[in-house]
Amino acid sequence: MSSTWGNQLKLSIFGESHGKGIGVVLDGLPAGQSIDQDELLVQMARRAPGRDATSTARKESDFPEILSGLYQNTTTGTPLSAIIHNSDTHSKDYADLNSHPRPGHADYTGNVRYSGHNDYRGGGHFSGRLTAPLTFAGAVCRQILARRGVSIGAHLLAAGNATDTPFDPMGMPDHVLSALAASPFPTLTRDAEQAMRQQIENARLDGDSVGGIVECMATGLPIGIGSPMFGGVENRMASLLFGIPAVKGLEFGEGFGAAALRGSTNNDAYVYEGVRVRTATNHHGGILGGITSGMPLVFRVAFKPTPSIFKEQRTVDLEAHAEVPLTIHGRHDPCVAVRAVPVVESAAAVALLDLFLEAYGYEFR
Amino acid sequence: MSSTWGNQLKLSIFGESHGKGIGVVLDGLPAGQSIDQDELLVQMARRAPGRDATSTARKESDFPEILSGLYQNTTTGTPLSAIIHNSDTHSKDYADLNSHPRPGHADYTGNVRYSGHNDYRGGGHFSGRLTAPLTFAGAVCRQILARRGVSIGAHLLAAGNATDTPFDPMGMPDHVLSALAASPFPTLTRDAEQAMRQQIENARLDGDSVGGIVECMATGLPIGIGSPMFGGVENRMASLLFGIPAVKGLEFGEGFGAAALRGSTNNDAYVYEGVRVRTATNHHGGILGGITSGMPLVFRVAFKPTPSIFKEQRTVDLEAHAEVPLTIHGRHDPCVAVRAVPVVESAAAVALLDLFLEAYGYEFR
Amino acid sequence: MSSTWGNQLKLSIFGESHGKGIGVVLDGLPAGQSIDQDELLVQMARRAPGRDATSTARKESDFPEILSGLYQNTTTGTPLSAIIHNSDTHSKDYADLNSHPRPGHADYTGNVRYSGHNDYRGGGHFSGRLTAPLTFAGAVCRQILARRGVSIGAHLLAAGNATDTPFDPMGMPDHVLSALAASPFPTLTRDAEQAMRQQIENARLDGDSVGGIVECMATGLPIGIGSPMFGGVENRMASLLFGIPAVKGLEFGEGFGAAALRGSTNNDAYVYEGVRVRTATNHHGGILGGITSGMPLVFRVAFKPTPSIFKEQRTVDLEAHAEVPLTIHGRHDPCVAVRAVPVVESAAAVALLDLFLEAYGYEFR
Amino acid sequence: MSSTWGNQLKLSIFGESHGKGIGVVLDGLPAGQSIDQDELLVQMARRAPGRDATSTARKESDFPEILSGLYQNTTTGTPLSAIIHNSDTHSKDYADLNSHPRPGHADYTGNVRYSGHNDYRGGGHFSGRLTAPLTFAGAVCRQILARRGVSIGAHLLAAGNATDTPFDPMGMPDHVLSALAASPFPTLTRDAEQAMRQQIENARLDGDSVGGIVECMATGLPIGIGSPMFGGVENRMASLLFGIPAVKGLEFGEGFGAAALRGSTNNDAYVYEGVRVRTATNHHGGILGGITSGMPLVFRVAFKPTPSIFKEQRTVDLEAHAEVPLTIHGRHDPCVAVRAVPVVESAAAVALLDLFLEAYGYEFR
Repeated sequence: MSSTWGNQLKLSIFGESHGKGIGVVLDGLPAGQSIDQDELLVQMARRAPGRDATSTARKESDFPEILSGLYQNTTTGTPLSAIIHNSDTHSKDYADLNSHPRPGHADYTGNVRYSGHNDYRGGGHFSGRLTAPLTFAGAVCRQILARRGVSIGAHLLAAGNATDTPFDPMGMPDHVLSALAASPFPTLTRDAEQAMRQQIENARLDGDSVGGIVECMATGLPIGIGSPMFGGVENRMASLLFGIPAVKGLEFGEGFGAAALRGSTNNDAYVYEGVRVRTATNHHGGILGGITSGMPLVFRVAFKPTPSIFKEQRTVDLEAHAEVPLTIHGRHDPCVAVRAVPVVESAAAVALLDLFLEAYGYEFR
Repeated sequence: MSSTWGNQLKLSIFGESHGKGIGVVLDGLPAGQSIDQDELLVQMARRAPGRDATSTARKESDFPEILSGLYQNTTTGTPLSAIIHNSDTHSKDYADLNSHPRPGHADYTGNVRYSGHNDYRGGGHFSGRLTAPLTFAGAVCRQILARRGVSIGAHLLAAGNATDTPFDPMGMPDHVLSALAASPFPTLTRDAEQAMRQQIENARLDGDSVGGIVECMATGLPIGIGSPMFGGVENRMASLLFGIPAVKGLEFGEGFGAAALRGSTNNDAYVYEGVRVRTATNHHGGILGGITSGMPLVFRVAFKPTPSIFKEQRTVDLEAHAEVPLTIHGRHDPCVAVRAVPVVESAAAVALLDLFLEAYGYEFR
Repeated sequence: MSSTWGNQLKLSIFGESHGKGIGVVLDGLPAGQSIDQDELLVQMARRAPGRDATSTARKESDFPEILSGLYQNTTTGTPLSAIIHNSDTHSKDYADLNSHPRPGHADYTGNVRYSGHNDYRGGGHFSGRLTAPLTFAGAVCRQILARRGVSIGAHLLAAGNATDTPFDPMGMPDHVLSALAASPFPTLTRDAEQAMRQQIENARLDGDSVGGIVECMATGLPIGIGSPMFGGVENRMASLLFGIPAVKGLEFGEGFGAAALRGSTNNDAYVYEGVRVRTATNHHGGILGGITSGMPLVFRVAFKPTPSIFKEQRTVDLEAHAEVPLTIHGRHDPCVAVRAVPVVESAAAVALLDLFLEAYGYEFR
Repeated sequence: MSSTWGNQLKLSIFGESHGKGIGVVLDGLPAGQSIDQDELLVQMARRAPGRDATSTARKESDFPEILSGLYQNTTTGTPLSAIIHNSDTHSKDYADLNSHPRPGHADYTGNVRYSGHNDYRGGGHFSGRLTAPLTFAGAVCRQILARRGVSIGAHLLAAGNATDTPFDPMGMPDHVLSALAASPFPTLTRDAEQAMRQQIENARLDGDSVGGIVECMATGLPIGIGSPMFGGVENRMASLLFGIPAVKGLEFGEGFGAAALRGSTNNDAYVYEGVRVRTATNHHGGILGGITSGMPLVFRVAFKPTPSIFKEQRTVDLEAHAEVPLTIHGRHDPCVAVRAVPVVESAAAVALLDLFLEAYGYEFR
């Protein structure tokens, strides 16, 4: 299977970009959790296209219809499901893609994997549109985590060659995380926003695209969540985060930068803050041995440039067995990382709630 | 749970560094696969300490005793298990660590996670020694994959600030991968080896350590293995690779570097090579949409510097509730990435065989 | 979690009896399987209420809307999802049940399990209505299995004290299985049908209910599907079949009757039928050591009497902390086993397809 | 895979009857649980052969060597593993069985499943000997459950045509369960013991065998453990219990008997016992909607007669493609159900602890 994830909390995502609808089932949510439905829509809106000049002009009716699992605005504890009906699809834009696979897309690998039977229209189940139900699931989970003091926020750390100031790994105040969430282009500094917008706009004008990096933080986590080896926080988050289309890299704490450090720099000394143990620095990114340390969880996700570009590319005609030029039409974000910011947060929320349930059981309130 | 992994092929790793023994169960191997036991020992030896001046002087009797699953040197199809008895343990070296957690280690988080009951001696179940059974499992799986044309190899891409030439993503010849496997310090160039050895030796002389990056490649993979979303090759490999101690980052293909690229550069054009479709370049690292493209699988794993250093560090005394200095004794590699090279390959082999079984079933031969 | 099942084929069922809708996701279906949608409706109709005098007068609009996973009447290989909108619900019939739990139902245990937050209306997620999406899933899977020569059929073996002739364990012809599938009251003999109808009608007139036994057979299975210990055909089928409401027992082959037999009777001798090995008798019910023998798979499922009866019963008032009488209103089958016949077949189909996928992989056609 | 089981508590069993050893890994045990190792041996001894005249004369050195997971007699929380070395094997007794499959055994299905590569000696991984590590795992889990007030006991309800008095479903006192555990032939009445022994002895003298039924009870369970649909207590227990060799049926509460009852009899009225809700009767066997009701959990497991009998049987010669007579030698219990009593309890203990962990998390003490 492909689109079912989780241990105590099972996430099942379904749908194809140009089919009747897409949706999600969350099985294993604790019962009795009040859910603010307006806030769910706020999170959905953050991911929706058309919110900002850098995103596609498509209008998706991303309104999720909740079918089950919520009664009187409270989780029932049985599976919560929601569907989003598709509309505003332009399937003819994609008509030739099954025989002319787009470079950088899953058209060709999907064609082989499914022997040509996958619904290739708009990318089908591979489409970035499938991040909408994931964002919905994350929006539910983050409300449950917030009640336990966990805040999750992210920003665009890089787009093309332009970069933002990184998060302070010792923690970011909630009001900053909230301000980022309210922004259609979430960066810590205005200069970074301008530089990144310029990179993206330049690419767009060239009929091209750029990649980006999303940095995410979760604060307020208890100490002792997660397990060694394959049950670690990193393993669980990675198994979910690599499910977001276009993700090519993931690092925690210092990440790849740690390779160039010495242990005396990278090790974080333990200190007492009153009766509480914490580390004096946070190179480890909040996880040691797969287990939360109580310090902020810090990770970064690398997104490749949008593969759908408008420049002419080379591909093959699988029917004619010939190499052919390809020009892609349609509407595509020149930098998928921008709208991916709330998606990354959502994936983190789902993974963390699953880990909470493993630690505390479904009896936790 | 922590140490059970897999879908069609279940891997279960057990043991603590200073307990009676460590071991592994592989449940779901296809039957009738002949296994060369000498070759298993060759792979185990690659990971074993004491093979090179850069590694710890400890001598581990890493000889795995196979208890089941192999009959007349052929897999039976029922669980293959092996144990490695522990010896040469110096538990007194670790006597104070439960109350004086070592910075950068899992001593503190493990203590909280297991309420002080975990076997902290030598790191217990968090120890790098647990990579021995993982290497054994990988050694079994890579023989099965090799018979299907899959070669797996890795090298040390970076140690501290010194770096090796990256793999050619279009593929490395088998004889180069074999030569790397035969080397105690696997780099592509002698200059890189010397520079890295210098970095490591300098750190060692300072009582310090350095991090590193392992780059791994698998060639000969069929097209169409893996699934979209959470069933992708990246997801499965990540959920296993982050189980190797000290791993802090993972990237596929261009990885984090893709963030700074434009789509027109990062996209890999499709071309015909005779009747076979391939890509003209391999920025995607052999995976598109979670599915193998038939191009070489390329990924890099970042290792933090060994947290056990001999310089004095600051920690806390959990019993006295005081901040105290800590000096670590014992025997520790100044750069864990060196011996991690075969471990990364092994994790890749296990993950790929699991994905093969999902694609072809246990009836595959 | 509660309602997610499977290994290679993941089944996720969601919904509550009186919520907006119920549905199902099937993740992991092989691609390229043509599906006859009319035949899906035929199977759904077999389970639907109101088909026969013995069933409730409720009319459910059991029309499944397929949202994804099917393109041009062929499976895409990505998750197939379907929803059934709820209607004709009489929630006021159930208004008091949360504080006055119905004996034999999950009202009380559900209330404790979900701290009073579960949607208790009409039984919520515990309702027999949730067998509709399971039947839909089975209807999809049985078409895929049928193309590989597997036929699945069932009959009502007992209702109250009346019993039907058991299946011949050496196999039943396809036309008999088909005739049973076409009957609203599937028994092998007309006498049995009459006796059972009498039992059910008598119970109904008394405001009471009766239990029943469904016997199911699958023919045409290959030899060698399934695994020893926990991967056995029985284990997998049991883990799904006990998910059907009101199931209290399950047996394979001779089942409980084998306890009174001697080995010399119960053992099935091997014989040659041409070049093919089979057993001369089929006491083992088609499974030995968890693995199919190629003989017909035979199993029986015991259903308790419908807990919703119209006779006055004793229960407690959880708010007043008092024992109180209870009279149930609404519309309820006096014998759930009748409509459970296609549900049992469906569960078998889902479990068997999952086992096929494990054996042959998703590459099987 | 075949021999890995569980959700929060992962059980992995390995080994073959005549290989080097067998063993078990339990991953996910809560930390800090003191374990009485002598009591583990007491439970192992209950299952061991040679304890009673009805069992095989084989002497197995069932002494489990604990390799990890226990430190200072307390669970560490990381995987607990134990191995049992094989000895006293008479492999030549089985020499011909791979080509002359024994009726009622898995020889033939195993041969097909594993393409002739499974270790067929002594039944290999299909052997009843694999219940030793399961019993060990159960012995660990039952100590943890006992500390929370859960008692588990079982008796032989039937052997051949002789039957014991059933358990009182309203509960059995702990001293009765303890007395049964201390008996090599656990029945509630002496008459039953004599009648059953007679049945077994008669069968043995005839070179034959008989089946049996084990009835098991767990008392002291909290209300609200388990989940609807596929997460039910029955589903989880069934998926484990059908892994015990020779099991052909499983029923909860009234089980198959419920089919003949009316709802007015089978429904259990709710009453108050002080401030506590319970049912006035216990036809439901302690589970409603998959969830514990707080009443005793009652279930019965049907065992087929030992397939290894000494009477001449008919089988095939797979090499000569001929039908041939078969006479089995070696040492075999004439009724496997006798020694299965502690195995059934053990499986119940493992399944219940897994369900507890799902409810309360690994943080439960």
